[in-house]
Amino acid sequence: MKRILTSECSSKVGEVVQISGWLFNLRTLGKIAFLLLRDRGGIIQVVLEDPELIKQIKSVQNGSILEVTGKVKSAPNTQLKVEIENPQIKIENPVLEPFTIDLTKSDINAELDVVLDYRPITLRHPKSRAIFKIQAGIVQYYREFLTQKGFTEFFGPNIISASSEGGAELFTVNYFDNKAMLSQSAQLYKQMMVGVHERVFALMKCFRAEKSATRRHLTEATQFELEMGFITDHNDIMDILEETIKFITEKISLNYKAELELLGITLPSAEKQFPRVTFKEALQIYFERTGVDERAEIDLSPNAEKELCLYAKEQFGVDYIFVEKFLRVKTAFYAKPNEVDPLVTNYFDLLCRECEIVSGGQRINSYTELVDSLKLKGLNPNDFEDYLSIFKYGMPSHGGFGMGLERLTMMMLGLSNIREATLFPSDLKRIAAKSINQIK
Amino acid sequence: MKRILTSECSSKVGEVVQISGWLFNLRTLGKIAFLLLRDRGGIIQVVLEDPELIKQIKSVQNGSILEVTGKVKSAPNTQLKVEIENPQIKIENPVLEPFTIDLTKSDINAELDVVLDYRPITLRHPKSRAIFKIQAGIVQYYREFLTQKGFTEFFGPNIISASSEGGAELFTVNYFDNKAMLSQSAQLYKQMMVGVHERVFALMKCFRAEKSATRRHLTEATQFELEMGFITDHNDIMDILEETIKFITEKISLNYKAELELLGITLPSAEKQFPRVTFKEALQIYFERTGVDERAEIDLSPNAEKELCLYAKEQFGVDYIFVEKFLRVKTAFYAKPNEVDPLVTNYFDLLCRECEIVSGGQRINSYTELVDSLKLKGLNPNDFEDYLSIFKYGMPSHGGFGMGLERLTMMMLGLSNIREATLFPSDLKRIAAKSINQIK
Repeated sequence: MKRILTSECSSKVGEVVQISGWLFNLRTLGKIAFLLLRDRGGIIQVVLEDPELIKQIKSVQNGSILEVTGKVKSAPNTQLKVEIENPQIKIENPVLEPFTIDLTKSDINAELDVVLDYRPITLRHPKSRAIFKIQAGIVQYYREFLTQKGFTEFFGPNIISASSEGGAELFTVNYFDNKAMLSQSAQLYKQMMVGVHERVFALMKCFRAEKSATRRHLTEATQFELEMGFITDHNDIMDILEETIKFITEKISLNYKAELELLGITLPSAEKQFPRVTFKEALQIYFERTGVDERAEIDLSPNAEKELCLYAKEQFGVDYIFVEKFLRVKTAFYAKPNEVDPLVTNYFDLLCRECEIVSGGQRINSYTELVDSLKLKGLNPNDFEDYLSIFKYGMPSHGGFGMGLERLTMMMLGLSNIREATLFPSDLKRIAAKSINQIK
Repeated sequence: MKRILTSECSSKVGEVVQISGWLFNLRTLGKIAFLLLRDRGGIIQVVLEDPELIKQIKSVQNGSILEVTGKVKSAPNTQLKVEIENPQIKIENPVLEPFTIDLTKSDINAELDVVLDYRPITLRHPKSRAIFKIQAGIVQYYREFLTQKGFTEFFGPNIISASSEGGAELFTVNYFDNKAMLSQSAQLYKQMMVGVHERVFALMKCFRAEKSATRRHLTEATQFELEMGFITDHNDIMDILEETIKFITEKISLNYKAELELLGITLPSAEKQFPRVTFKEALQIYFERTGVDERAEIDLSPNAEKELCLYAKEQFGVDYIFVEKFLRVKTAFYAKPNEVDPLVTNYFDLLCRECEIVSGGQRINSYTELVDSLKLKGLNPNDFEDYLSIFKYGMPSHGGFGMGLERLTMMMLGLSNIREATLFPSDLKRIAAKSINQIK
């Protein structure tokens, strides 16, 4: 008999089927036992009445691999609306000792640190599975939308020979007899790719050796990278980003209903137009709403970001807000100064719910302007020879953005820590989820 | 006026349009000049008759960014079947000195080493652009097919704390005060993910510090990773792989006609069923066809691989062949020994045209069997604690494969060097295309 999925059983009422999966849980009620079996289609209830069979299943722990053959019966009150009766059960791979944490509870009853210590197993919890199913969906729809819009995916390097942005904290790699570095972003490479395909995107790892132990920082993250040529200014980039977020939100709402319900969450509201305010206006709004005067500051504080998100929600009924035209002193060397006010650049952040999830903008595309900008930032143009060559041999006006996948997942699903949105997180204390203290 | 793409001009005959792109080439013929303008839609011909305008365009080099406004005219003999006449031209960003290599020739007239030295610009050559357009397509169809088949994409770690396969050459990373490593494959993580989503895939970077300076080796490569649970044996993995290759081949043939034509190639034939021979049979076939006796060898030689591909083509009319049941001494610790003959494993390679492009098979899913296998290979089970935990708490029969994207692109497009299928290749001599000698 061929295995079918639990999710396929509802169309087989009255038939004998074979299903396989993990023993999720077993409850006994008098002489009857209810076995929950999990596969990638869902969780189905199997009703056991044979005392010998109940005894046998009780001898193994949750997580055991079972093959169940039985008759499908209608059961409107269960998750899948059907259950299996009169089963024959084969224990394919038994679990002999119980796992430390109870994965059958609706929430894991353990600190995040403990959850991460046992990451390969705690990922099996239904809520955790739902998070990473949705994450895969976010990525799928991101690519789908951009492919429709004429973007080409590219695969840039992670090991690089020089800083991609100059300055910030980089991990070094022992590359045979040389020192190399791990890329912090695909910035310079995606700009190079504009000369090739005009519109490009990538999903790239980025590595940051920042000593930040916050709930929003990882040392290894996954980043959506986008760059497009022949733009008028950064508004074109904000447009494509806004459309992308709207597309993802719509598709996830539609196709991940069960996961969203299980997690008990509503996605950030993205239907209405995202407001766009300048950095200067943003600080004014923050001041007017809270009395806190940061109008002389050169960057947005976390509290200002939070307040701007509230403002967007209250005034415009949307959970996203763009802040544009940041001070040139605070933006990267490749940021295009604004034509009207050269003290600010055509750069923006997109905030969602409480913090920044995207940075982007228009880049400088003139060779001489870029060389001047490098020098202004105290960088040596000789270190950027390959990158600079693209501007010597023809570059259109262009811009793009970078958006952290884990940060986006965290904000969209309202998670309290970015590690919950990362399969095997690395940070100051952990490498691929494993605690550094435990590494010999 | 709003910019349209060159590829959209054919539906605008008689209308005045605005297009923007790179000056690909300018040829003069008496008093007329033919300007070729490239954008992401293609290359269009613009006919110049105004002597002043011709003089002006002659003053800038190929690669300059131009905005052209003019009338679309039917021109059946050109690539896009239309051309632009009576143009007004704005030089948006001029190129002042000519690029070292002529990119207008049908093939770049330079050694691969020189091509790589100028990678950001040589990638703009039409053939190079076609290769990487197709590569993006390969990845797109790979994901599309597996998503249809119920696979979930996952994002595994690149920085890891221990060897993922034990033994082989790893790059070390200076991770704050610790040593970490760059992952060689997603092997252990994708197996962990079977416990979570049952069927998973990924496109991951893998890093190998091998001192192999061949035309098929990179130190940083992009790898398709796949793993699925509840299989009967490795034949299920060969089935899904074969279906995937067939799907990609069909879609690329259909949707990348222009690129394939430009490259002048035919994809490897994948319509017929891929033959499956055992390792033992493979050596026998090699012996019978060539007289070379390697029947006592423990692995396939490059010549044997080449001959087996010829055999598949001649006997079965297909460019792919599976070789299965390799010797246990030659396969990894997690490879499942065959039930009938425990000296061989349920492992396979897929060969294409001349060499191996995929390795895969069934994995051991019993905890005790795996611990024994680790010891047999001289590895310490304590180093694999996280990985081993998944087998303690319930793992179904499972298997998967790894397939190098660059190697696949190379073989599908019949390229002679894997670096031609890699945007910014790293190897013993280069880091992200840049020659190590040139790095200060």
